[in-house]
Amino acid sequence: MNECQEPGLLTMTSFASLDLLAFDADDTLWVNEPHYTLAQEKLTQLLSQYVDSRSLTEALYETETRNLALFGYGAKSFTLSMIETAIELSLGNICGHEIQEIIDIGKALINEPIKLLPGVQDTLSQLVGSYPLMLITKGDLFDQESKLARSGLADFFQYVEIVSEKDEGTYSAILEKHSAEAQHFMMVGNSLRSDILPVLNIGGYAAYVPYQITWLHEQVPALHTSEKAYFELESIEQLPDLLHRVFEWR
Amino acid sequence: MNECQEPGLLTMTSFASLDLLAFDADDTLWVNEPHYTLAQEKLTQLLSQYVDSRSLTEALYETETRNLALFGYGAKSFTLSMIETAIELSLGNICGHEIQEIIDIGKALINEPIKLLPGVQDTLSQLVGSYPLMLITKGDLFDQESKLARSGLADFFQYVEIVSEKDEGTYSAILEKHSAEAQHFMMVGNSLRSDILPVLNIGGYAAYVPYQITWLHEQVPALHTSEKAYFELESIEQLPDLLHRVFEWR
Repeated sequence: MNECQEPGLLTMTSFASLDLLAFDADDTLWVNEPHYTLAQEKLTQLLSQYVDSRSLTEALYETETRNLALFGYGAKSFTLSMIETAIELSLGNICGHEIQEIIDIGKALINEPIKLLPGVQDTLSQLVGSYPLMLITKGDLFDQESKLARSGLADFFQYVEIVSEKDEGTYSAILEKHSAEAQHFMMVGNSLRSDILPVLNIGGYAAYVPYQITWLHEQVPALHTSEKAYFELESIEQLPDLLHRVFEWR
Repeated sequence: MNECQEPGLLTMTSFASLDLLAFDADDTLWVNEPHYTLAQEKLTQLLSQYVDSRSLTEALYETETRNLALFGYGAKSFTLSMIETAIELSLGNICGHEIQEIIDIGKALINEPIKLLPGVQDTLSQLVGSYPLMLITKGDLFDQESKLARSGLADFFQYVEIVSEKDEGTYSAILEKHSAEAQHFMMVGNSLRSDILPVLNIGGYAAYVPYQITWLHEQVPALHTSEKAYFELESIEQLPDLLHRVFEWR
């Protein structure tokens, strides 16, 4: 076969190649933020004698932000911040029984069944033979491992990186560890702050798949995102087609 | 130089070689368990109107064990278990102010300055050029990363693995990930349950450096350890000499 007679093949050689395709987990592969919203609604109800919903949201976010440097992300940190907020807003009057209810809200959050987002299973099935797939998720190690195991998706991923923060340093370290270069790396995720911007800043590709709710902490003003180019998809199901158009398909 | 005239060199060629030398962190490289003991003493004092020290110890251990499958190891899990135990032992009567004191005990535990164990810095300095060093530690990702950063030891380790459990499966997965074989791997640590037995069971070497206190959960009856051979050191400072005698020195 004379490859010179196939213009398509010739064109493809000028495409960029993709050596590593990484996915965020929470709200990219499975539902997460709505569980936190539900937990917060339960807390609002429990504390209704002390505070209204809006003030609670503000106070809880302030506590979470204050505790982030000490506790990191995840359901246990969130539970401890819920308890601290409840104590603060009740001026210390909240009783043990009610605190136990808050712990139980946190336990329910950790135990929440994993609900995959539409198209995730099919998309990963299509991609798994073509690229080395990696999961890069931020948060509590134990919690994220448990969620991955319960998701049924673990076998799709050749590599799993559970990290405490997703910034440029984290992505650079992961690429170095796997001897991969940023220009042959793409990150897919729902958070501009954690999945898209840091990857663009180190020279990688990023596909943004927005989710219906974004935690306040992950929200960034549009102006921070205007200078760099990333792909935006309505659904993860559009990813194989995007990759086919942008990268050399293996 | 005629190597045949140097019997020492000839003998060494029959030694096993060591491709990866891994260390536990808590109570192997730095002080940990005494901080938990201190936290528990503070809790005992706080709850003295409800319970005596011995009953508290039992109840807390029971809560921790019950929560392990949901929370995993680490200071945040411990804090949540302290709170639950306090609620239970006070029959729900403990107030918000006291719960805040428990959270503050947990925060102090997380913030505790890192105190290296004697000889650790010197020993790692001696070994770092000779073997690829790895840290394998169990617990909370965020907490362990913070402790490693604050310890000043991070540069000694070529690889860092923070895991949620230290069993045979975990060690096998780490070895596979790093293309290392158990018969060329040694683990150094203070816990027979987590650092020594699972490594022996997959065919690796293990050096046991007991610490003055071992958390009840990590204690194993002697009969479980009698069938396999491991090295026992009084101090980590004896490790270079042990390695020199057992393994080919690079």
